[in-house]
Amino acid sequence: MVVWGINPVLEALEENPEGLERIIIFKKALSGKVYRILELAKKHEIQVKIVDDPNFHPPKVLPQANTQGVVAYISEFQYASLEDIEMSWTLSQETPLVLALDGIVDPQNLGSIIRSAVALFAHGIFIPKHRACEVTGTVIKASSGAAFKIPIAKVTNLKHALSYFKKLGVYVLGLTHKTETNIFDLDLCLPLNIIAGSEGSGIRPSLLKECDFLAKIPISPRMESLNVAQAIAIALYEVQRQRCFAK
Amino acid sequence: MVVWGINPVLEALEENPEGLERIIIFKKALSGKVYRILELAKKHEIQVKIVDDPNFHPPKVLPQANTQGVVAYISEFQYASLEDIEMSWTLSQETPLVLALDGIVDPQNLGSIIRSAVALFAHGIFIPKHRACEVTGTVIKASSGAAFKIPIAKVTNLKHALSYFKKLGVYVLGLTHKTETNIFDLDLCLPLNIIAGSEGSGIRPSLLKECDFLAKIPISPRMESLNVAQAIAIALYEVQRQRCFAK
Repeated sequence: MVVWGINPVLEALEENPEGLERIIIFKKALSGKVYRILELAKKHEIQVKIVDDPNFHPPKVLPQANTQGVVAYISEFQYASLEDIEMSWTLSQETPLVLALDGIVDPQNLGSIIRSAVALFAHGIFIPKHRACEVTGTVIKASSGAAFKIPIAKVTNLKHALSYFKKLGVYVLGLTHKTETNIFDLDLCLPLNIIAGSEGSGIRPSLLKECDFLAKIPISPRMESLNVAQAIAIALYEVQRQRCFAK
Repeated sequence: MVVWGINPVLEALEENPEGLERIIIFKKALSGKVYRILELAKKHEIQVKIVDDPNFHPPKVLPQANTQGVVAYISEFQYASLEDIEMSWTLSQETPLVLALDGIVDPQNLGSIIRSAVALFAHGIFIPKHRACEVTGTVIKASSGAAFKIPIAKVTNLKHALSYFKKLGVYVLGLTHKTETNIFDLDLCLPLNIIAGSEGSGIRPSLLKECDFLAKIPISPRMESLNVAQAIAIALYEVQRQRCFAK
């Protein structure tokens, strides 16, 4: 698997150096953070190739990808387990905040969501194994490397994963427009697993039934919906806002 | 100028039919909303070409663009004036909420921001004439057609535009990490002009000086920043939340 861009490669080195196979750096990219990449690669004894020819095309990289002159090859993305997500909030001693994604298919959206999840204090994310975007190089780039900073689990059955957290006292909050409840009218200081649906069709009915609460972000009737990544960022922000005030 | 995608073309027809020159529709796309496009095109006497050959490539459309089988050519994007933005809140009888963008360069980000602005009740947007992304076909597609639903002004000097609204009693709120004030600690029920900076460097110092207030969205030290489109969506949501409660 290939990862590109300065921040994503730096994050890969900092969070998961053992997964890194080799790094290609274009000579003209050498400055600032790229020296830090060289330093870390040396420390972890990872092979680095410095390329002088600007026309060299690193294998497996899409032609339109903006590599910023830095490309890394990793064994494969390390998915986490549900136990890893549980461990993440246990270690932080914070109230659980987990994100379940029901069929996000756009890699830019998935990357943005992962970035917001790390920035806005979520403890983990789980995605379905089928009919959804996986964590690819494009997703890692769009996440600005955040994909290496949060446990992301890939599960066969979202319902079972929701149950796993329910048994630990975590409530399921469905983000949907099929409700009259505004998100700011709910108490979000409870342990929460927020579930959001795909760009087109939202949360599947079979999963909506699993929700303890439903909430919407009130929007103007002039738009059909918010982009799913913006909606999730707002929901995570609202949780944090309430928890800050409740302290 | 070319616009593609079902929603963007539909919005162009609904909001700005006089700007439309002609429409190309692929036969296989004919269903649901596309019939509505045909209906409106007929009503406004706009020339429509139905194409049967799936390999036909509509002029000026990027090869990777997902047209959904619908392409429209418009004379040019109709930018608004600052007076149009003022008119927008006057007509709605709502408290002013204007967005100033200091140098957003990514068309996907600009499109997302426009979509959030319409969904989250902003009255207008202004962008600089230079060193920033303009409203292109890619931006319109990323906005899901929202670019036709809100006045967007393109100004030579952002500072003058901020002054225009200041004279009308609108306060300037800078969204930046160069402050200790959390956005939820400010009173956002005032008439507001929110300014946000470019993806890389934030609001320019000369414009930061023009702000009446500065606010940040508190994020984890594990990430450098939120994506600018997510940050703006959160700020607009927070304004709306406070205004809903203040009613």
